[in-house]
Amino acid sequence: MTYCVGMLLNAGMVLLSDTRTNAGLDNISIYRKMFTFESPGERVIAIMTAGSLSVTQTTIARLADAIDNPDSTMTPSIMQAETMLQVAEIVGNTLSRVASDIAMKLGGMSQNASATMIVAGQRRGGDMRMFLVYPEGNFIEATSDTPFLQIGEHKYGKPILDRVVTMDTSLLDAQKAVLLSMDSTLRSNLSVGMPLDLAVIEADQMRLSRLRRIEADDPVFHKMSLAWSEALRRSFTEIEV
Amino acid sequence: MTYCVGMLLNAGMVLLSDTRTNAGLDNISIYRKMFTFESPGERVIAIMTAGSLSVTQTTIARLADAIDNPDSTMTPSIMQAETMLQVAEIVGNTLSRVASDIAMKLGGMSQNASATMIVAGQRRGGDMRMFLVYPEGNFIEATSDTPFLQIGEHKYGKPILDRVVTMDTSLLDAQKAVLLSMDSTLRSNLSVGMPLDLAVIEADQMRLSRLRRIEADDPVFHKMSLAWSEALRRSFTEIEV
Repeated sequence: MTYCVGMLLNAGMVLLSDTRTNAGLDNISIYRKMFTFESPGERVIAIMTAGSLSVTQTTIARLADAIDNPDSTMTPSIMQAETMLQVAEIVGNTLSRVASDIAMKLGGMSQNASATMIVAGQRRGGDMRMFLVYPEGNFIEATSDTPFLQIGEHKYGKPILDRVVTMDTSLLDAQKAVLLSMDSTLRSNLSVGMPLDLAVIEADQMRLSRLRRIEADDPVFHKMSLAWSEALRRSFTEIEV
Repeated sequence: MTYCVGMLLNAGMVLLSDTRTNAGLDNISIYRKMFTFESPGERVIAIMTAGSLSVTQTTIARLADAIDNPDSTMTPSIMQAETMLQVAEIVGNTLSRVASDIAMKLGGMSQNASATMIVAGQRRGGDMRMFLVYPEGNFIEATSDTPFLQIGEHKYGKPILDRVVTMDTSLLDAQKAVLLSMDSTLRSNLSVGMPLDLAVIEADQMRLSRLRRIEADDPVFHKMSLAWSEALRRSFTEIEV
């Protein structure tokens, strides 16, 4: 499985993904699940993926291919699309086409070949927007009522987000919130694993302000994780029943 | 859906269940999911249920019927069974038989008629034991490595349990832990709802030490829930990234 979370705030967008991929329990690999595309000052797009690796890799490869060879396809690439809404539509269409191609190949083997994606970005002159794209290509959008979107193993890390995140959360607090949400997921579910990929996109910069891989032995993350466990245990002790 | 959690500790057992049942999103009802059977000083058994209401109700009805009419069945009732292991087997067999009866009636309608149960108890002369019974009637048991069992919507409330519960946790702390675990689930998932049923079984008493319904407007639970939210937010603020 996977856990990816994206936040759309007034100050910008924060995205975090894990990297664990497994075919069964005894075949575990590390694969990047966050993909970024930027033309600094003009456009920035980040895509996070969950689901069948063959579907997500092929979808991302086709999207990248369309950027490199803009004349080879009928539809514009995500770097040419006129709005972020159109970007989400292109990703959704590509995703559903790839998934049904692969499902056809798998035929009666009833394998589950589907994927879900979070697409976030901003183009110059437009608003920041963040979408959750479903396997069928349709999508929903993050709003001020629901400023975060999750894909994959989303339940373990939801309680902390439900409690601390609003549109006014700062980018620093948002990074802390997604890392703690991931930490809860990592502790409770083996199918989500380090390293992590963290991206920060400040509002109206149309560039990646930060793109960082957090390794398993990262001292800052480790310290934060310990401090959070400690704080939870202390809070637990202090609460009166 | 449902959330039920049971803990097996050195000091005793603590069980908590919600009461929300829904057929679709617009048909929500309150049904008890915790059932207790005791012969004080001799034997105490608590069963919590998750899944299809027709399956769980019929299973519990048959178990209760066998207690009331011990001569009417070939197998002993759960109040006659010689060990808690045998109790788990009786519950498992009854559950799987009821589920397959109902599945047969539903025929090709491909309805999902299955249920999962937590069975906990102690008989005089035996150890406290707690089992998670699967829809097919097989089961697993809580051990010192894994002192809690969950059924239903278990993911939201797992991180807190993973962090604070061991076999040495006191019964008071265990009640706090299951209530906070439930609180996280209630906040993040609409399909789990108040009121709650809480049972405490002290070790070697072979009786229910406490059985309490916690209503939606319960001031103590409400205060604890607020204090926990406040503590989480404060901890969040204090953590350094």
